[in-house]
Amino acid sequence: MLGHLYANQECSAAWTLELIGERWSLLILRDALFGRCTRFSQFQKSLGLATNILAKRLEGFVAAGLMEHRQPGASGEQEEYLLTPKGWELKPVIIALTEWGDKWVRPGPFVYQDASDGQSVALQLRRVGDDTPVAIADVVARRRC
Amino acid sequence: MLGHLYANQECSAAWTLELIGERWSLLILRDALFGRCTRFSQFQKSLGLATNILAKRLEGFVAAGLMEHRQPGASGEQEEYLLTPKGWELKPVIIALTEWGDKWVRPGPFVYQDASDGQSVALQLRRVGDDTPVAIADVVARRRC
Repeated sequence: MLGHLYANQECSAAWTLELIGERWSLLILRDALFGRCTRFSQFQKSLGLATNILAKRLEGFVAAGLMEHRQPGASGEQEEYLLTPKGWELKPVIIALTEWGDKWVRPGPFVYQDASDGQSVALQLRRVGDDTPVAIADVVARRRC
Repeated sequence: MLGHLYANQECSAAWTLELIGERWSLLILRDALFGRCTRFSQFQKSLGLATNILAKRLEGFVAAGLMEHRQPGASGEQEEYLLTPKGWELKPVIIALTEWGDKWVRPGPFVYQDASDGQSVALQLRRVGDDTPVAIADVVARRRC
């Protein structure tokens, strides 16, 4: 959560980065999206960050609707932070960031696969409707009508 | 440029965010990628940010290999900051951030189109090789072999 610098910027990309662009936020979301982390202790063990910062980030994700906080139940359920559909749909954002870093910084430790058979998965730009691929150079931004 | 917090994190997504995740960096890159901005004055007019901050960010992009600084030429060429291939390939990252913000924050002012005919363009997760679409829920991260 980068604060409200972007409040006056009419930019969807900036609004998204305001929610996920803070240093630890990206890593917490990555662990929730791909590392099966749901409990406070799992995030803490994975990232080694201060508990007060982790608590604040998780509370922020709940407030932003990216996670739901399931309180410990009388029937023995553990306290958990579970991604909402709004949170799950950040997966392509993380994958886009990863693909660029893999190519232009250095190959990172993880690849993305189809869970059913392990086939590699990648993001592609596609024409909506006829579904053909589009080269990066051919994509422009136009003002919404 | 978020500094070196991520230096010890083996995470390609974090490495990318380290380069583009700073407050103004995203907006400068957006204007270079989609707003045809190449001159210092164009970025400054578009974003209204302090000139010392803009200069520092542009220098940082040149140092990171995202832009080339073309000095003013004897033959009257203007000084320009031009995206390199490494910079151009950030387009899908900006589009991924925009698509999520459009859906989950509010529709922003721009849509992405194929320049040739104005057809809408969107990112899709695809199986590499056979090229079929993959649902977000089916994509997992596996350690690189």
